[in-house]
Amino acid sequence: MTYCVGIKTAEGLVLASDSRTNAGVDHIATFCKMAVFENRGEAVIVILSAGNLATTQSTLSTLRQRLREDDEDNLFNQRSLFDVAVLVGAALRGIIHRDSPHSRRHDDIDFNSSFLLGGQLRGEEPRLFHIYPQGNFIEASADTPYFQIGESKYGKPMLDRVIQYETPLHEAGKCVLVSFESSIRSNVSVGLPIDLLCYHRDALEVTERHRITETDPYFQRLGREWSQGLRKLFARLPDIPYWNPETGDDKDRQQ
Amino acid sequence: MTYCVGIKTAEGLVLASDSRTNAGVDHIATFCKMAVFENRGEAVIVILSAGNLATTQSTLSTLRQRLREDDEDNLFNQRSLFDVAVLVGAALRGIIHRDSPHSRRHDDIDFNSSFLLGGQLRGEEPRLFHIYPQGNFIEASADTPYFQIGESKYGKPMLDRVIQYETPLHEAGKCVLVSFESSIRSNVSVGLPIDLLCYHRDALEVTERHRITETDPYFQRLGREWSQGLRKLFARLPDIPYWNPETGDDKDRQQ
Repeated sequence: MTYCVGIKTAEGLVLASDSRTNAGVDHIATFCKMAVFENRGEAVIVILSAGNLATTQSTLSTLRQRLREDDEDNLFNQRSLFDVAVLVGAALRGIIHRDSPHSRRHDDIDFNSSFLLGGQLRGEEPRLFHIYPQGNFIEASADTPYFQIGESKYGKPMLDRVIQYETPLHEAGKCVLVSFESSIRSNVSVGLPIDLLCYHRDALEVTERHRITETDPYFQRLGREWSQGLRKLFARLPDIPYWNPETGDDKDRQQ
Repeated sequence: MTYCVGIKTAEGLVLASDSRTNAGVDHIATFCKMAVFENRGEAVIVILSAGNLATTQSTLSTLRQRLREDDEDNLFNQRSLFDVAVLVGAALRGIIHRDSPHSRRHDDIDFNSSFLLGGQLRGEEPRLFHIYPQGNFIEASADTPYFQIGESKYGKPMLDRVIQYETPLHEAGKCVLVSFESSIRSNVSVGLPIDLLCYHRDALEVTERHRITETDPYFQRLGREWSQGLRKLFARLPDIPYWNPETGDDKDRQQ
């Protein structure tokens, strides 16, 4: 599996991906799932991917090859990030359509993938899209400012509690790392390194991108302080009052 | 969906289930998913269920009907909780086998269910089993003292951080409620009331069982203090140090 998060805030975008892939427990490998397409002053386009690795790699290779051609399929020749999402969705759908007939009946192989697409084109706001295997997509808004793909459930409660459109950019980045820490702890299919990118609106270039490995002192400290803090907070919560601690009897039943 | 947790600690068992069922968003209903079979001084058997409601209800009705008969299929006539698990697994498998052929090819209906079975029979330790739709099962141990079924991922990180075999029984109960609070907040298919049962080893009767509804002052307070505490704890975590806060430039790239 995989875990990727994209957040759109008033200040810009936070995009993060883990880098573990697995095809069964005996084929675990490390692949970067963050692809950055940068045309300084004109466009920043970031694609995070989850799902079948052959599908996502083929889709991205196709998109990269087209950057050399000066035609309508070039990511940098689009009017809007919406048009970029249409292009990426069509490429993804095309690869799945190409490969799927070759899955034999009982192989049980899933060729599907999905993407988070975030970025900004000159003249537009920063935008964030969630692209489905069918090639269609939805866009984040102030009401729903974040998307996740992959092993999303373990890390969702913390995002639900903290993330809003008004959340400062680096605070959103910190929350994403807490969300990753929980996912990594509870699920072996999500693993370090984490690729983290914070994009400031109207920068039109990538200034803040970082790869967080196992030896990263900040991430280690974050995990340690978060774990210790959670246990202390939990210990301070009031005890269950439902039963008489002396007899163990249910108070309701006594009345 | 559903969310159920069973924990086996040195002091006994904690068992909890939500009570929301849904067949699509327009068929949401409330059903208790905790079945208690009590034979005071002899046996306490608790079954938590997740999955197809028709399957779990049929299985439990079958088991209840057999309580009237004094034969080898009666839950209370078993030598061990292992034998009870065999019986419950066989009943579950039988119901799924009975109904599945009537699912038409493209109905896409899943008749599967799974159970958590916890309890104690006189002369044995308290035991906890996870029973699969195939009727087979695994048993909890000191190394892996808890099982979840249903929408388990949202609430897993907190259990992973707190629950051990040595955790005091009521502290485990409190942790289960925190785990439910996160699941309910992040997923609409998990909902109140929660049925919570704490079983003290060798009691051989149910003394602590409680139904937690929306108006429960303790659960409201728990949710409030947990949310506020998490946000405070998060705010105290150190800020991301990767970038120069003045220029936004990546420190690594500057070096």
